[in-house]
Amino acid sequence: MAADHFGTRLTNAIRGAGTPLCMGIDPHLSLMPALFGDVSDPGSPSTLRAIEDFTMACLEMATGHVAAIKPQAAFFEAQGPDGMHVLARLGRAAIDAGVLVIMDAKRNDIGSTNAAYAEAWIGHDAPFPSDALTVNAYLGLDTLAPLLARADNTGAGLFVLTRTSNPGAGDLQDLDCDGAAVFQHLAAGLAPLAAERVGELGLSSLGIVAGATWPDEARALRQTLPSAPFLVPGFGAQGAGPGQALAGLTTGPAGPEGGLVNSTRGLIFPAGAADARSAGDWRGAISDAIKASRAALRTV
Amino acid sequence: MAADHFGTRLTNAIRGAGTPLCMGIDPHLSLMPALFGDVSDPGSPSTLRAIEDFTMACLEMATGHVAAIKPQAAFFEAQGPDGMHVLARLGRAAIDAGVLVIMDAKRNDIGSTNAAYAEAWIGHDAPFPSDALTVNAYLGLDTLAPLLARADNTGAGLFVLTRTSNPGAGDLQDLDCDGAAVFQHLAAGLAPLAAERVGELGLSSLGIVAGATWPDEARALRQTLPSAPFLVPGFGAQGAGPGQALAGLTTGPAGPEGGLVNSTRGLIFPAGAADARSAGDWRGAISDAIKASRAALRTV
Repeated sequence: MAADHFGTRLTNAIRGAGTPLCMGIDPHLSLMPALFGDVSDPGSPSTLRAIEDFTMACLEMATGHVAAIKPQAAFFEAQGPDGMHVLARLGRAAIDAGVLVIMDAKRNDIGSTNAAYAEAWIGHDAPFPSDALTVNAYLGLDTLAPLLARADNTGAGLFVLTRTSNPGAGDLQDLDCDGAAVFQHLAAGLAPLAAERVGELGLSSLGIVAGATWPDEARALRQTLPSAPFLVPGFGAQGAGPGQALAGLTTGPAGPEGGLVNSTRGLIFPAGAADARSAGDWRGAISDAIKASRAALRTV
Repeated sequence: MAADHFGTRLTNAIRGAGTPLCMGIDPHLSLMPALFGDVSDPGSPSTLRAIEDFTMACLEMATGHVAAIKPQAAFFEAQGPDGMHVLARLGRAAIDAGVLVIMDAKRNDIGSTNAAYAEAWIGHDAPFPSDALTVNAYLGLDTLAPLLARADNTGAGLFVLTRTSNPGAGDLQDLDCDGAAVFQHLAAGLAPLAAERVGELGLSSLGIVAGATWPDEARALRQTLPSAPFLVPGFGAQGAGPGQALAGLTTGPAGPEGGLVNSTRGLIFPAGAADARSAGDWRGAISDAIKASRAALRTV
């Protein structure tokens, strides 16, 4: 049971890889290297094949070198149901390779409907298999119950959107309510739920999304949620440096832990990769990008 | 162009059907009538066939008698990628039958990713075809831009989750921020965007979700958003009566308009339908349920 706990598995993955770096896998058609094939006809078999080859190649580069991958559901959904097949196979392949899969799908609904999303997206046996799912709690804390139940039963985790990294994140999240921002009220509501789910290495299976572009907020959130894993988007292409990205993480025996620092464009679409002439050149560009991000997160 | 405007098409659909009633189509496996086949093995071909037959039969019963259908994405996703194929075909069949399709998928992400969700879910030519999509704006108003752009380009609409119908809806939505609740701040932020998108019959293509269980809130929201269509969940099985459900709607020449009152369980899982012995009996039960809800919404 304890070995199956998401927080424990996440800590072990970070220590094993030697980095809290997470590779975002977002197959933007406009950014995909020509090397992987023609993507000019969305939804077509050739485009789907190129996306599958590209995302599987990203997974191969990630294996052993990052702590987790985070596929973005939207880019697979944009290809229709067959794109969802590619996402399901990518998740399965990552699990088979021993790579943690954070499905970034930001699902949300009322309770009985969230139970269906939980079936779809949470755990290794789900149709869209994962180790953890991103979810949105605007509809209320009660809506998390069926998601938490499924996560608890399958040894999976959740990351609740709390403070995001986009410019307009503050429109609702920062509204001041009796001296605390909305996102802080949300964090306070999550605190007892996270505390009930702490694994043997001190990390909970219930975490939050806390954008790298707001390090002060991340540090405050860490006070409220001492044992929650933080999923930190916004590092690299979205503008945050390593110091900002690590602000909400904790310090383990060999470096930062307690969460994941995600990079997407910086890792899968680095300079030199788009016009790579050979698979070897592409792999070299991705490998260099991973090494550079790992190093940046180590030297803060 | 004007004929393609979602707000105008919605008003015409309500007037044509003679009711603002919307049929929610949520294929809960545990509630599906045995008549449609065996659903004991989720994701199997027999379960998928039963879901397709059931949801297509619901659409057939809806055609001409309600203003729109609202398929719930979660229940199709729970069947995996092949379930998503069923959802795509249901949407296509509804559009071909001239029935408005509100895809209830509550998608949300930052801008560049929301552009991919927009491609996936908005408009008649999307892989998951729709006339309108439900979306979640917790991440900020800036995140709506690519969704609005796609809706504007395809004559489609959006319904932004504002005040939902579940018991815990108030956890974040009702937090008081300088004298106004979070959901009211959201509505105020949406007001100029809705006002820019008013069609020739006075209804905008940008609407909100406003739960039937909170009629006072719905009336206040109508003040802030005079021309926005309201999608009202919570009527019937979720506990709200017709007077509550209609609180946020407007009065047209022949009855309530300006939004949709959704009923799911009351229409597709009414008493007597689960154990119907024949297709004729099942159709009779559904038809009676639709008539009863239409009548309830007419006599307030």
